[in-house]
Amino acid sequence: MKIAIVTLDGFNEIDSFVALSILGRVKADGWSVQITSPEKSVTSMNGVTVTAQQSLSFANDADVVLFGSGTRTRDHIDDADLISQFALDPARQLIGAQCSGALFLHRLGILPATATTDAKTRPLLAKTGCLVEDKPLIAQGNIVTSGGCLSSQYLAGWVIARTLGLEQALTILEYVAPSGQKSTFVKAASDIIKPQLNVPTQPALYC
Amino acid sequence: MKIAIVTLDGFNEIDSFVALSILGRVKADGWSVQITSPEKSVTSMNGVTVTAQQSLSFANDADVVLFGSGTRTRDHIDDADLISQFALDPARQLIGAQCSGALFLHRLGILPATATTDAKTRPLLAKTGCLVEDKPLIAQGNIVTSGGCLSSQYLAGWVIARTLGLEQALTILEYVAPSGQKSTFVKAASDIIKPQLNVPTQPALYC
Repeated sequence: MKIAIVTLDGFNEIDSFVALSILGRVKADGWSVQITSPEKSVTSMNGVTVTAQQSLSFANDADVVLFGSGTRTRDHIDDADLISQFALDPARQLIGAQCSGALFLHRLGILPATATTDAKTRPLLAKTGCLVEDKPLIAQGNIVTSGGCLSSQYLAGWVIARTLGLEQALTILEYVAPSGQKSTFVKAASDIIKPQLNVPTQPALYC
Repeated sequence: MKIAIVTLDGFNEIDSFVALSILGRVKADGWSVQITSPEKSVTSMNGVTVTAQQSLSFANDADVVLFGSGTRTRDHIDDADLISQFALDPARQLIGAQCSGALFLHRLGILPATATTDAKTRPLLAKTGCLVEDKPLIAQGNIVTSGGCLSSQYLAGWVIARTLGLEQALTILEYVAPSGQKSTFVKAASDIIKPQLNVPTQPALYC
């Protein structure tokens, strides 16, 4: 299972690293979570420079592709050269987007008809005709969106649940949950993730 | 306000980056949050290499010092050269530790008599004579501990509350909270952080 965390200049650290760290707790054979960038290194919205683990082509071969948000998302989606490097396939891949990462789904023609995002991106997504709901996590078929930085924990949980089952996802989420809040956290995560596991693709799937 | 996120080889990405990203949302003059490492670059427990923003001496001058956890904490606390580089002062600095980061507090002689940590570190802390409680966040005076990776959100909130006030902390936590969960999340965060803001240092402060 190859998982590409698409990480671009100006990236939000919570989006890339909470997903990477939670998904990295899976100890299954062949499970590989990789910071995936067009350049050899990439600098976050708070000025932290990270060495890429994979080039962008890894995303096209990956089983799971996650887009985070960042301060430069609108520049990136208008970068024709960058966008042309993606050849994703929601029939074959699980594809997730966090907050403004949903704008990549739109630019790639795979934004579901119902999605979630953060407050700043909401008016932009609404313009596409997409129904934007105020929820942490919304899936349609193999595509999932999450809204609010800290919903990255549910995004990562959804990926584990879709690939290895809900029980495995909740075991890992319990491990990373705050002390003294384990059972409440796992119950809340289950309530958020479980209804999003078998959502059929609907007519007018893409906006 | 200089904030050092002490980040060492094998570091847990959630601990370093959730704190950095939340604290980076403060837009106050002179507010600076920095990945602080003994080497020019440092590699996480999942193999992500990050360029240090500051050398370790920055921690000694900083107003706030946070220790995260990681897979190599026990090696680091036994590294006399590394430990000798710290000259922290809880009278002058706010000092926080997440999960196994609490072992640094013990090695530096500033582990509070009551603390929290993760399940794996709990027996090690208990051996020191420290009372380990099953809570997300526990403060004594200027020292705070948090347990479970995702309690890093409360650790960051506590730092903002102690420096700029609880209202500012909750405004920023509301921003990063999952969509559809903002009010529940802020209420829970307030309930966790507020009682830890004015906890006096007790007799037998350090274990």
